[in-house]
Formats: sequence, C-alpha cells, structure tokens
Amino acid sequence: MSVLSYFPSISLPFTAAHERQVIQIGALIRRLLALVCLALLSLNGHAQQALGQRPKVQSPVIHADGTVTFNFYAPTAQQVSVTGDFEHIRWQTLPMALQDNGVWTVTTQALGPELYSYSLNVDGQRIIDPANSYVNRDISTLSNIFILSKETTDRGHLYQVNNVPHGTLARVWYDSPTLGQQRRMTVYLPAAYDGKRRFPVLYLLHGHGGDETAWGDLGRASQIMDNLIAEGKTVPMIVVMPNGNPTCNAAPGWWHEGMYTPDGNAFRDRGAKASMEESFMDIVHYVDSHYLTIAKRSARAVTGLSMGGGHTFGISRLYPEMFDYYGLQSAAVRFRAGDAQFEQQMARLFASLPKLYWIAIGKEDFLMQMNSQFRQYLDAHNYPYEYYENDGGHIWRNWRIYLTLFAQKIFKD
Amino acid sequence: MSVLSYFPSISLPFTAAHERQVIQIGALIRRLLALVCLALLSLNGHAQQALGQRPKVQSPVIHADGTVTFNFYAPTAQQVSVTGDFEHIRWQTLPMALQDNGVWTVTTQALGPELYSYSLNVDGQRIIDPANSYVNRDISTLSNIFILSKETTDRGHLYQVNNVPHGTLARVWYDSPTLGQQRRMTVYLPAAYDGKRRFPVLYLLHGHGGDETAWGDLGRASQIMDNLIAEGKTVPMIVVMPNGNPTCNAAPGWWHEGMYTPDGNAFRDRGAKASMEESFMDIVHYVDSHYLTIAKRSARAVTGLSMGGGHTFGISRLYPEMFDYYGLQSAAVRFRAGDAQFEQQMARLFASLPKLYWIAIGKEDFLMQMNSQFRQYLDAHNYPYEYYENDGGHIWRNWRIYLTLFAQKIFKD
Repeated sequence: MSVLSYFPSISLPFTAAHERQVIQIGALIRRLLALVCLALLSLNGHAQQALGQRPKVQSPVIHADGTVTFNFYAPTAQQVSVTGDFEHIRWQTLPMALQDNGVWTVTTQALGPELYSYSLNVDGQRIIDPANSYVNRDISTLSNIFILSKETTDRGHLYQVNNVPHGTLARVWYDSPTLGQQRRMTVYLPAAYDGKRRFPVLYLLHGHGGDETAWGDLGRASQIMDNLIAEGKTVPMIVVMPNGNPTCNAAPGWWHEGMYTPDGNAFRDRGAKASMEESFMDIVHYVDSHYLTIAKRSARAVTGLSMGGGHTFGISRLYPEMFDYYGLQSAAVRFRAGDAQFEQQMARLFASLPKLYWIAIGKEDFLMQMNSQFRQYLDAHNYPYEYYENDGGHIWRNWRIYLTLFAQKIFKD
Repeated sequence: MSVLSYFPSISLPFTAAHERQVIQIGALIRRLLALVCLALLSLNGHAQQALGQRPKVQSPVIHADGTVTFNFYAPTAQQVSVTGDFEHIRWQTLPMALQDNGVWTVTTQALGPELYSYSLNVDGQRIIDPANSYVNRDISTLSNIFILSKETTDRGHLYQVNNVPHGTLARVWYDSPTLGQQRRMTVYLPAAYDGKRRFPVLYLLHGHGGDETAWGDLGRASQIMDNLIAEGKTVPMIVVMPNGNPTCNAAPGWWHEGMYTPDGNAFRDRGAKASMEESFMDIVHYVDSHYLTIAKRSARAVTGLSMGGGHTFGISRLYPEMFDYYGLQSAAVRFRAGDAQFEQQMARLFASLPKLYWIAIGKEDFLMQMNSQFRQYLDAHNYPYEYYENDGGHIWRNWRIYLTLFAQKIFKD
C-alpha cells in the first residue's frame, strides 16, 4: 500500500528512502527527477488520486432536490451505516449498501435547509467520514458537518459563509483576578469595527462540557452574526464567548494541562476560587477596557445554553443593573423559591426593569419541566418575560436557532 | 446499538422519542426522571461509558519510556495498522494486533521529543483515530497528533502549551485593493501586546495547498512563539500569517465558495488580478495601520516554506528596502540567472544590505537541487547568506524546526 495516499501535502512524488538511492545516480537524472517532481507538485491532489488504488470517493454529495448521498470505501466491512441529525427531533441511522467497487452508499430523504452533523458506523466502531474534512468537536467527539441551503431567506443561508463583510474572530487571553488565572475567550468583532466607533456587547455562554470554542464552531456564531448584520436584521455588535469552566483556563489542548481527552468533568475535583458567575465581572471589565464598547447597561446582553443558561440566570441575579437583555436557552435554572436571598435577588432583578428576559426551550428538552416550573414562579410574581418554545430537545440545532432569534431582539433602541 | 454512544454532549439519558412516551406518565414520574437526568447530566461522560457495549479505548497512550501505544476497536476488521512520522525521514507503518476484546493494538519503539502525526488504516481505508480528538488538517486530509516532551529544553516542550503567558490569535479580514478582495489572515499578538508598546512583525507564509490556518495548526506557531518569548529566546513580536492563494479569500469553508473539498488547485483556473508577491504590500499596510507595529525595515522579517519560500524570495526582490530578515524554508526558488530584470533585482536586494538572508532545507528535500543551484548562484555573485541543512525532507517537522531557529535570529539588534 502506497504511503502516498496518506498526508497529501507532505508526501511527495517519491519518498525520502527512494531519494537516497536516487542521489547515487548522478546529476543528470537528479535534475530530470527534480523537474518531474515540480510538475507533479503543481498537480498535487490530482497526481495523488491517479497514484491511489481505490475508487475516488466523494462524500457527502448534496443533490439539487435536497437529498444527500454518503459514500465510504470499506470492501471488507460487514455493516456500515450513517447516523445524523437528519430529522429534527431524533438521530436517524441509515444502513449503507455495499457496491461492487467496495464503496458503501446511502441517500437520505430530501432534507430541509439546516446545518447537519453525522458520523459513520463501521462494524460497531463510530468514525468520521474520511472524505469530509469539515468537522466539529463536541467534548471529545468529532462529527462531520454539512450545510443545506436553497434560499437566501432560509436557515442554512444564515449558517453558511456568504459573500458579505466578515467580522474578526480572536482567541484572547485575559486576566481573571477573581479566579487567579490567565483565561482564554473568543471575541467576535463585527466587520464595521474600525477602531473609532463603539459597539454594544453580547456575552454568549456555552453549556456543560463546552468551552470558548463551542459557540464559534458548533454554534456558527460568527457566520450567524455576519449574516444577520449584513442583512440589517441586527445591529453590529461585539460578541464575547468566554470559557465557563472555572477549573480550566482554556479549551482542551490550549492550556498547560496538555492534550488530555476532553470529558467535561475532568477538572471538577480541582476546586475553583469562585464560580463562573462570581468571576464574570472580570470578563466585562476586560472587554470594556480593551475594546471600543458602549459600556452601559442598554448596550449589554447575555445569553447562554443549558449550563450557560444557568450562568445567565445567575448573572441576571448577581448584576441586575449591568445588563438589559437576558436569554435563557434550554437553561439549567436552579431556582430556589422561598429562599430569602434568592427572592431578594429576583425582586431586585425585576425592579431594575430589564428590557428583555427571554426563555427559550424545545418541547422535547429534558429541562422542560424545570423551565415550566420557573415560568410558573415568574408568573406567580408577575415578573415579565418572553417565552419561545419549539420542537426538539437539548441540541445544538435549537441553540443556533435561539441565537438567531435572540440577536434580532437586542439593542434595538 | 445505542444512539447514546454518538454525540456525547447532545445525547441525553433518554432520547426524545422516549421522552414523548414519558410525558404521558404523569407529573410525579416526570419530576423523578428530571432529577435522574440532572444527576446523569452531571456525570455525563462517565455515565455514557457505562451505557456503552464495547471496551473503553484510550489512544494514544504515551508511556514514560517514550513508547506509545495505539488502540482501536474493530473486532471484524482483517487488517489494521497505524502510519505515523515516528521516524524522522520516512513514514512508518506499524501493523496492529487483534486482542480478545476486539481491540487492535501496537506499541512503537521509544520516540524522541517531537510533535507526531498519525492515522489508522483499516482494511485499506485510511481513517483518523476516534479516541483522539486532536486533529490537524493538511489540505483535505485529517491526521491525529500527539506531543512527546521530557525536558523543558527539548523540542516537544517548545511545541506544547506550557504555563506561560499566551499571545492572542485572531482571524482577521482585511482589504486587498490589489486583488480586489476581502481576505482573511491569522494574526498572533504577543502576550505583552498591551495597546501601548510597539512590536516588530514577522510575516510567516505557508506552502502550496495551505492557507492562513496552516502555520497556526500544523506549524504550532503560537505555541512556539509563546514559549520562545517566555524563555527570552526571542523578542516579543507580532506574527502575521496571510493566505498565499490569490484566487481564494480564505481557508476552505471560511469564504463564500462553501464547504468544498480542499485541493490546493481548486481555484487555480479562476485567475487572479495579481500574484501573492504583487499584492503583499496590501498586507503590510493593513498591519502597520491596524496594529502597534514598529513600521520600519529593521523590525520586519518574512519567511515561508516551499511555495511560501518562493513568495519570500519574490518579496525580497520586489521590496528589498522593506525587510531586514528573510528566511527561505525548503523554498521553491525559481531563479532566472541571466535574466536582466532578475539580475537587477538581485543586485538591488543585496546592495540594500539585509541583515539576514537565511536558506534552510533538509538533505532529503526534493527541492534540494534547486536550492543548491541557487546557493551556487549566490556564491558566484558574492551575495552573503546563512545556510542551514538538516535531515529529512519536505515535511512540517522541518518547518517547525526552521521557524524555531529563524525566530531566534531576528530583531536581535
């Protein structure tokens, strides 16, 4: 088997071992070979496909009617399937069929505009599709992604990279005195950020097991913001995506714990000097002192999913005068009705008259019960909030939708 | 097969389909289940391992003696191997052995400190290791990576994330009037960048098939710079990593061509308004006007690998008064000895007395012949340069080494 089929850009037309022999042959042949190599280098991918033994596999193939074909070469496998979020509510597993050329294949039903995630299963082993280099990591699990879009008005359109001005996405290290750490966060600056004009700030929080890369990668935050801003559906804003795990400094592999297997609980026992919520003002202070922000309540929003929805809830109680817009997405709202301190915080929060207290959750979300009880509590106290309910459960598809909706509700006046 | 073994953070203790039935059961059971779910959510990864059917697989496992064990579950496969750059010069393929529990395994020889890349081959299909979520993309090919390091003085140490101050890494969109495009580049700002002090700038160029993500991901540029700066081996500097393909605006998936299969030549036919070298001053002007740079020749360096070494060569001839340090790494130096314009450019370049003209290449590099001839040309004209030759060929391992060496040679006075 040819080593050339591995590592395309670093495997070259002949291997180092061959080169050594070639060196003995003499200057003329070396010169000829160098020329051949240069010609092959300029062909690169094409040359390598020609050199390979197995059929050229393209996967996924997106058809005009919205059906999608997956292909995977595995002539000796007994069972191959693809599992993806092709249906809104549950994962769908489609068995693939072996063709004569050793390629397993299957075509989905017609799919609607959406960002889809999938993986392959080969005789009981979950793997990613080697023909698709677009991959998202969720905790320790890699999945392939693809996007379907037909109209400039559909959801797929909002998630893809369109020919619009793009914001800058930065991985920024900031100092957290409260946690006694240097910590990493992701900062999106809108395309209009020119070093002169000031912008409002949206703080966007991830869930359990996530990190400061989650909203950018799984959540398509920069694409959503680029597109909504370009279409005039929201105002240009700075988006700050911090790391919500006080016992980690950064995403796996990006701090000094090394390249551990991400787990979400790996550092829970370590203890932290403070909670996410308690240390949150370190982030706000850093952002207001390092970027051209509109540093006032009416230009600050905070929203998060699941654990990050819980953080949003905590932040809304701890700093009610700091934010005008709150979004609780599939939130882990651990509310303590009857507790004196909690009741006091809630009274102060709503007395401060936030412009928006938004609660969003899917009908199938396992936190629905908790959110329903929370809404009953808010109703009983005549605390005003907006509520959005849709299909599906505790999944990224819903959180992308919620970001899209929330971003259009904030900083409107 | 349980869907739960897919997508850890979004698969929950019961699926949406089950939830629907549960909703019929009544409030008490729902409340109990919600509590159970919360408990399981807090266990997360652990809970899911317990639910799985197959043995827990850890891979790679790095042992204290520098040997590394790879494990892969595939009870029905006929042949499984791992291919990695475990030897400096060539890729090594190690056959794996099937154990009773369905896990294939192999242990390497003792390896030295280094960043290693590898993939698995299962019955003729190249895949990445599903137990390792650390992955680099090279053109369209994903490979797993791991780092070995023993001493704070070894190469592995320079490539890993240590407990030192970290620079900021940003994906920045800039305007290129020469190419008539918005284009993306990666900018590293050193930890010392505080909005007050000014810094020198290193321009760092990728090779054929690469893009503005290559030096950060495959080249470990931000880790190398963080570590060299923290150890006082180089001065804090801004590092600018542009996209060297004038027919693309950004890396695959990050511009409006969508999520195409990266190929390196995909957009070659499209034509560009200008070459990388001709449009290079757009980048320098953007950087000098948007960052606190020391905007003079003695504080500008440019280096690149392969095609980017060719770009560095071109830039040195087009703008000899702009840079004091040049680094040609495994460079595609297409020199035209005898050509009047070329000779004029070269004479002007060396008359401008650059502080460093550095040429680095591996003994096994297929561009060795071209570089030898270029050095003969320089010698014949008494043009001064520094030369560095090491083992190995046209591979990222060497380019990481070259960056490490070049960064310690520049901006010293």
